[in-house]
Amino acid sequence: MASLKAQPAFCMGEHTLTVPIKLHDLNRQRLCDRLRAKNVPENSVVVLQGGESTTRYCSDMEQVFRQESYFHWTFGVIEPDCYGAIEVKTGKSHLFVPKLPESYAVWMGKLHSLEFFKDRYGVDEAHYVTDIADVLAGLKPDILLTLKGINTDSGKTCREAAFEGIGQFKVDNKLLHPEIMECRVIKTPLEIEILRYTNRISSDAHKEVMKRVRIGMKEYQLESIFQHYCYFTGGSRHMSYTCICGSGENGAVLHYGHAGAPNDKTVRDGDICLFDMGCDYCCYTSDITCSFPANGKFTEDQKAIYESVYKASRAVMNAVKPGVSWVDMHLLAERTQLEELKRHGLLKGDVDEMMKAHLGAVFMPHGLGHFMGCDVHDVGGYPEDGPPRPSEPGVRSLRTARNLEEGMVLTIEPGIYFIDALLEQTLNNPEQAKFLVPEVIERFRNFGGVRIEDDIVITSDGMELLTCVPRTVEEIEAIMAEGRQLPSPFPQEKLQPKE
Amino acid sequence: MASLKAQPAFCMGEHTLTVPIKLHDLNRQRLCDRLRAKNVPENSVVVLQGGESTTRYCSDMEQVFRQESYFHWTFGVIEPDCYGAIEVKTGKSHLFVPKLPESYAVWMGKLHSLEFFKDRYGVDEAHYVTDIADVLAGLKPDILLTLKGINTDSGKTCREAAFEGIGQFKVDNKLLHPEIMECRVIKTPLEIEILRYTNRISSDAHKEVMKRVRIGMKEYQLESIFQHYCYFTGGSRHMSYTCICGSGENGAVLHYGHAGAPNDKTVRDGDICLFDMGCDYCCYTSDITCSFPANGKFTEDQKAIYESVYKASRAVMNAVKPGVSWVDMHLLAERTQLEELKRHGLLKGDVDEMMKAHLGAVFMPHGLGHFMGCDVHDVGGYPEDGPPRPSEPGVRSLRTARNLEEGMVLTIEPGIYFIDALLEQTLNNPEQAKFLVPEVIERFRNFGGVRIEDDIVITSDGMELLTCVPRTVEEIEAIMAEGRQLPSPFPQEKLQPKE
Repeated sequence: MASLKAQPAFCMGEHTLTVPIKLHDLNRQRLCDRLRAKNVPENSVVVLQGGESTTRYCSDMEQVFRQESYFHWTFGVIEPDCYGAIEVKTGKSHLFVPKLPESYAVWMGKLHSLEFFKDRYGVDEAHYVTDIADVLAGLKPDILLTLKGINTDSGKTCREAAFEGIGQFKVDNKLLHPEIMECRVIKTPLEIEILRYTNRISSDAHKEVMKRVRIGMKEYQLESIFQHYCYFTGGSRHMSYTCICGSGENGAVLHYGHAGAPNDKTVRDGDICLFDMGCDYCCYTSDITCSFPANGKFTEDQKAIYESVYKASRAVMNAVKPGVSWVDMHLLAERTQLEELKRHGLLKGDVDEMMKAHLGAVFMPHGLGHFMGCDVHDVGGYPEDGPPRPSEPGVRSLRTARNLEEGMVLTIEPGIYFIDALLEQTLNNPEQAKFLVPEVIERFRNFGGVRIEDDIVITSDGMELLTCVPRTVEEIEAIMAEGRQLPSPFPQEKLQPKE
Repeated sequence: MASLKAQPAFCMGEHTLTVPIKLHDLNRQRLCDRLRAKNVPENSVVVLQGGESTTRYCSDMEQVFRQESYFHWTFGVIEPDCYGAIEVKTGKSHLFVPKLPESYAVWMGKLHSLEFFKDRYGVDEAHYVTDIADVLAGLKPDILLTLKGINTDSGKTCREAAFEGIGQFKVDNKLLHPEIMECRVIKTPLEIEILRYTNRISSDAHKEVMKRVRIGMKEYQLESIFQHYCYFTGGSRHMSYTCICGSGENGAVLHYGHAGAPNDKTVRDGDICLFDMGCDYCCYTSDITCSFPANGKFTEDQKAIYESVYKASRAVMNAVKPGVSWVDMHLLAERTQLEELKRHGLLKGDVDEMMKAHLGAVFMPHGLGHFMGCDVHDVGGYPEDGPPRPSEPGVRSLRTARNLEEGMVLTIEPGIYFIDALLEQTLNNPEQAKFLVPEVIERFRNFGGVRIEDDIVITSDGMELLTCVPRTVEEIEAIMAEGRQLPSPFPQEKLQPKE
């Protein structure tokens, strides 16, 4: 075990990425540097509480544990019910693990020593959770820094560390949140390496889906192919989010795939598929959308819409670099898409006026993209001292309005959707209706939508593309043609009358 | 849509089971019959709250929704955030669904009318949740019956229905729980039909795993094959529980596969695999364990242990019928296994004395089996008026000590494990150590374990076996030999030096 001790790492097998645990050590150092620069009291101690094991409702069915993202970022611990502390002055780290009963060895596996956890997670000291108050008291902290703050994507407040005996300490729950959040916004090379990996695995899984899709399949069967590929090949036990597998008209349902619309439509000839899926490895996510014709061949209309979105995607990719405003990027995508829709005869009139009338949001009601990291909608979008959320349609759905900085990881995900509810509103609004060519728009009812979503890192002079899937019409048709050679049997094939 | 209206049903596609919604109507009728027989006030109204959509920690990552089991049993509703009510006197049913904002149509899909939900779920009336207090007041109930009680498997209390305005009603939260729990214990033919289906799909998925396993794979890759089969072929989005994929020594870790031991060992030549996996369809579960040699061929020792467990399994299957005590069945399994272990030279001495010394629990510390239904450990094991939990080793782990009744669904899951922690204890306990043949036991260190777990229904004169997997040594070796002809490429195969 000497080599494990020398280089502790997370790994799901030799065919998967090895993530050195020093990634988390470096994160802790960065956090301490920031806190010291903010002149926190000299003997401040950061205290974080990890995620807990949960059961489904009142039953004893344990849900598959996934670590809480702040705790993962800081300590990289895979087990539930832990705490961690960092002495800000020295950077010294303490991990607190549950003291497990003897019976654990029968039901859950070998009981590990504190030394094991110290080595495995590369912390300076490991203790039992039951000793947390005593250990922290021994550090004689001026103050404990606990995590409390609002997640601007969910509106929820993160759970602050609490333990028996915390009452004896002076606690500050305001200083830590903005600083650790800001650390998470800028990714280190070690973090980017995992994001490259999750993108590679998810990209390959998307390709697998494109090759195996057949008319008559259920959407969820393609979700299942994706998940299986990511877990079997990539060691990814969790998805970054519930897969969105919209075919045909469901492509226009932005968060399709949830319990009320569980990817259960049959994929039909002529449908365009919009599949938004990404895997998670070592608690780092990916978020990729591919749009492709179910039968492998774009119609002229599908090609027109697809290439309009593709043009917006690449316009943004060419423009992003440090200092650029993300709001401007959203507007660039909107403008590009409106120009293209006009060129293809769906819209008429002046594009500047369309922009003023917020016509972009009719076809793309969501934001252009978002931060991505340990959470798929990663934290830090709207810090207190950052630009506030815009109020106009479209841009108000952006999860950040910040200027770009080197090391930020974002999605770029323009899209064009034909959403009945929005088209009706638009047709009834004279300010907007005048730009629509109704008879052409009518042809696109039930078309669904197209989204092209890639993950990028901002570099010193532009960006690096992490996602690697077929993107041009030619590339997509080629891989799908290749896929027709592969077996893709599905059980309902035999049962179905041909449509 | 006339046919949907006439025969509402849950179905994930023509290749999957169609579950008529009248299953839930019948459940409601059974519940009302029981409550009326208990002389509840004439105008009692049962009020249940469904499961809620949840996000991971403070993020906006929505977890895949699975309905709460009591609510599913009663209403069969797939959407979150609902309530339901039943007028006990008449059996009239009311479903309350959330009133969704207009924006839902953009993000989540078509807004459905109340009429849609009424038809889809076959209830007498559908309303919005916001109107629940008014609607219930209009029924002029003597009393509202809400659900509060302890789940004896988890020790947790189920969440009682609560809504704004409940203060104006007289509420009883004690009467309902024992009655609805008892209804869930006895399954109807419609429920058994789903359990047959989950068993068929899970059985086929286990067979797929046996065919595709190869030395050098990771345990979780077999978990992934299982899950993919169940979802792709069976339409099963959820597993009944976290897959337990123990190979070699991990077979002796009863709840292996959790976050701290996440099925991440490499399957080695000579390992015996103990794979405990089951799928969930329409919120009805399955729970099956197969034990087989990783390389497809039992060693003599593996065969001895396997056949000992198999003998116990079939002894219990031959003995179960209405009126039989489940505790006796556990003891029968223990005795059979001890006799076999003696016959194979691992134990010596008198089996009656071994039983008195609780030696059975050294090799099988868990209970023989448990109720199964909407929860994998289904409710009703220890009702207030039923036999109490035994206190002796082994039987105290039983999840019920009741006598069997027609319509009960249980697992039968004897097993023999070589658990270091327990063997050490036993060797240090003179009362037990005298039965062990240490030099033979020593040979089985790191053997792991064998469990044979099947799901059964108690019939009027015996049982019906729901599970259908290869069980004899010959059957297992035959299917695994057949599987060697199939491709089972895994990415690390190329990377590994041969052991």
